Amino acid sequence: MLEGPRVVDAALDRDVSPETVYVAPGADRAFAPLLERVRAAGIATVQLKEGVLERISATVTPQPILAVASRVAQPLDRLPHDGVVLVLVSVQDPGNAGTLIRSAEASGAAAVVCCGNSVDLHSPKVVRSSAGAIFGLAIAEGDDPVEVLAALGARGRRRIGTAAAGGGAPDQLDLTGPIALVLGNEARGLAPDLSEHLDAEVTIPVSGPAVDSLNVAMAGTVLCFEAARQRRNRS
Amino acid sequence: MLEGPRVVDAALDRDVSPETVYVAPGADRAFAPLLERVRAAGIATVQLKEGVLERISATVTPQPILAVASRVAQPLDRLPHDGVVLVLVSVQDPGNAGTLIRSAEASGAAAVVCCGNSVDLHSPKVVRSSAGAIFGLAIAEGDDPVEVLAALGARGRRRIGTAAAGGGAPDQLDLTGPIALVLGNEARGLAPDLSEHLDAEVTIPVSGPAVDSLNVAMAGTVLCFEAARQRRNRS
Repeated sequence: MLEGPRVVDAALDRDVSPETVYVAPGADRAFAPLLERVRAAGIATVQLKEGVLERISATVTPQPILAVASRVAQPLDRLPHDGVVLVLVSVQDPGNAGTLIRSAEASGAAAVVCCGNSVDLHSPKVVRSSAGAIFGLAIAEGDDPVEVLAALGARGRRRIGTAAAGGGAPDQLDLTGPIALVLGNEARGLAPDLSEHLDAEVTIPVSGPAVDSLNVAMAGTVLCFEAARQRRNRS
Repeated sequence: MLEGPRVVDAALDRDVSPETVYVAPGADRAFAPLLERVRAAGIATVQLKEGVLERISATVTPQPILAVASRVAQPLDRLPHDGVVLVLVSVQDPGNAGTLIRSAEASGAAAVVCCGNSVDLHSPKVVRSSAGAIFGLAIAEGDDPVEVLAALGARGRRRIGTAAAGGGAPDQLDLTGPIALVLGNEARGLAPDLSEHLDAEVTIPVSGPAVDSLNVAMAGTVLCFEAARQRRNRS
């Protein structure tokens, strides 16, 4: 479910065509340019009757344009061989997941994989907070984090886990080549038993009293762009 | 207004003592360790009667612990002379402002200044989304962005404005020494007439179709930590 004109627009920007676009009463005029674009792409539009939107939307104040698109997740073994893969292990907040997908796309990462007890990347909140970026890179959903890390490692990907302390500084680690940046749960981080499935650990040096001063979305954003910086300088 | 046990805890972590801490019915037992810490610091606590919390809190589902602290903003000319100052020009979303304060503190920045039509940094939402980081660095509030940039420049601070395009890459600019990283409004960025008050412009290289693929909080976070990286390598 794509909620809101901006997400529908973002999907079209990335050559993803929703199956159907639903238009609230009165929205036809307000979003004429977007709906023209939708119709030009051959996408069916459905005019909603008064009161229907409120019943099908996931938000309290529903957006006047909704759309349905097919799921974007693909099997792990179909992911690109090179580039950065961001792995979310039990990341539970949809806003964090959306921000991470957005940072991944903007930094040029190849894919985002979620596993463990993570939020569903297809939930409307994640799609919305990704600002459509979920359509701009490969997405995969795994189950057991150990299996996901093993599969990524078997394909020659260096797996770099984030740790609140004890890891190398991001710019002291080689973040070029095929890597997986592995992020953990908001409160608990990565489970200790995953460390044997990691090739390195990274710790962003932070100031201030709080160990948890960076949340997972900020940490992932910093790491994605540090990887992008190293890749620019390498090439 | 500090809303919630975590923010009160974060203030104490930073040696900031709220004037009074308000405790909802039943919260005494649930937050015994925090309240012990509060009382040990000599801070007055007030037990709220049933229904009072709901009337004084700014949130729909109020937190069981509230506190009031004195304002943290100081005059511009009292800010530290060295280090990174993050300048928010008409940043309007409290969540973005809070995240930026948090990233600023975690990256070791010296201060955050807001000006123009920015959100009030003392609003409960900003304090809460800063996770208490607002108590961990210097805070100043200006009015006219031109005056703020002129004042910072007059004190020898290189002012580096963010631009969606056309600026230097973050790692190609010198972000050491006394600098101001200047961020603009969520939708409009920095006004063009501010460019004559900037010493350089920075553009984070991004992939993907959207020019606005990074929001202001993510962009500021990336820049704060790139400045921190350069400073670590310099020292």
